[in-house]
Amino acid sequence: MRQAVHRLAVVTPGRGMVDVTPDIRRWTAACEIETGLLTIFCRHTSASLLIQENADPDVLRDLESFFRRIAPEDGHYRHADEGADDMPAHIRAALTQSQLSIPVQRGDLTLGVWQAIYLYEHRAASHRRELALHLIGE
Amino acid sequence: MRQAVHRLAVVTPGRGMVDVTPDIRRWTAACEIETGLLTIFCRHTSASLLIQENADPDVLRDLESFFRRIAPEDGHYRHADEGADDMPAHIRAALTQSQLSIPVQRGDLTLGVWQAIYLYEHRAASHRRELALHLIGE
Amino acid sequence: MRQAVHRLAVVTPGRGMVDVTPDIRRWTAACEIETGLLTIFCRHTSASLLIQENADPDVLRDLESFFRRIAPEDGHYRHADEGADDMPAHIRAALTQSQLSIPVQRGDLTLGVWQAIYLYEHRAASHRRELALHLIGE
Repeated sequence: MRQAVHRLAVVTPGRGMVDVTPDIRRWTAACEIETGLLTIFCRHTSASLLIQENADPDVLRDLESFFRRIAPEDGHYRHADEGADDMPAHIRAALTQSQLSIPVQRGDLTLGVWQAIYLYEHRAASHRRELALHLIGE
Repeated sequence: MRQAVHRLAVVTPGRGMVDVTPDIRRWTAACEIETGLLTIFCRHTSASLLIQENADPDVLRDLESFFRRIAPEDGHYRHADEGADDMPAHIRAALTQSQLSIPVQRGDLTLGVWQAIYLYEHRAASHRRELALHLIGE
Repeated sequence: MRQAVHRLAVVTPGRGMVDVTPDIRRWTAACEIETGLLTIFCRHTSASLLIQENADPDVLRDLESFFRRIAPEDGHYRHADEGADDMPAHIRAALTQSQLSIPVQRGDLTLGVWQAIYLYEHRAASHRRELALHLIGE
């Protein structure tokens, strides 16, 4: 049994979902662990993780509209110093995931056919985000 | 230290929560791992996982009403080709869990007395769903 | 490779977020595991876990207002026997996390600079809550 750790840096283009599945798959394969558990941890409070459909891009657009409606920028927040997009970003992060763990079999993630792992940037501007990856297995 | 993996197939009767605790407990016990970590991963984007109260079924009904209100079928979604229930299903999945990890002690899950693990089917029709299980420990 | 388990008891002062980061960090350090994976599991259905900003307390206040708005106490719930705050508590728990796993490096959690781990009490009254901790690594 052994472990591997990695920091995956992702520069986001501003609000929206970045498909990080290929990067995570590539790192997992390079670890040469046949069976194990992969954990992805997002080291931020205004960006988060989400597993969603990788087929129709309208799904991601509708999700973005949903979060815009439920946590609007003009929400009369106390926390407003960092910009109108910052408090909605914290709410979106609270409602989605900071962390995901996915079983590994035959050296690959056991994702379903239509599943992709997205880093969801909640701030309006581009940011450099860091994901801590951990893999344990043999 | 060793690992065990399993695929648990669940046929859902359509929208609603299926208690998968007994199946997962049975498999965990059969693995004969005294101390460890159990991970459940839902391989779908219109079904998800939820830990909720196992006592009063009205809790599950009120939760269902909540999600119906927050992500209604008549939500003017772009993604509409797969039926009016599909985009709400993706939103519900985004707001709940794709994955749960639960510590194991004395060969059993460390669930609280009132906790059950539910597979939450978000589509109106019956589906065959697959959960990837992973257990590591000794 | 080895494991450690612990039960962390937290007495909450009623609705709101309790920063459990120092307690969890202290226990992790005492385990003397250099590289590994820490899992926190909340054994309740009306309290949950949340990673959020530890800097501006207004973020936590705005989050509390958000959840109050989205799951109000006067929500005409069927499940009402345990008090007007109980069903909103179940909804809040469903929308946040029952469990978090965080990679460990150099004997410490790989949290980002602004991240804290909160136990989010959703009931109005004070409760004694229990977190099951699990650490695996070497």
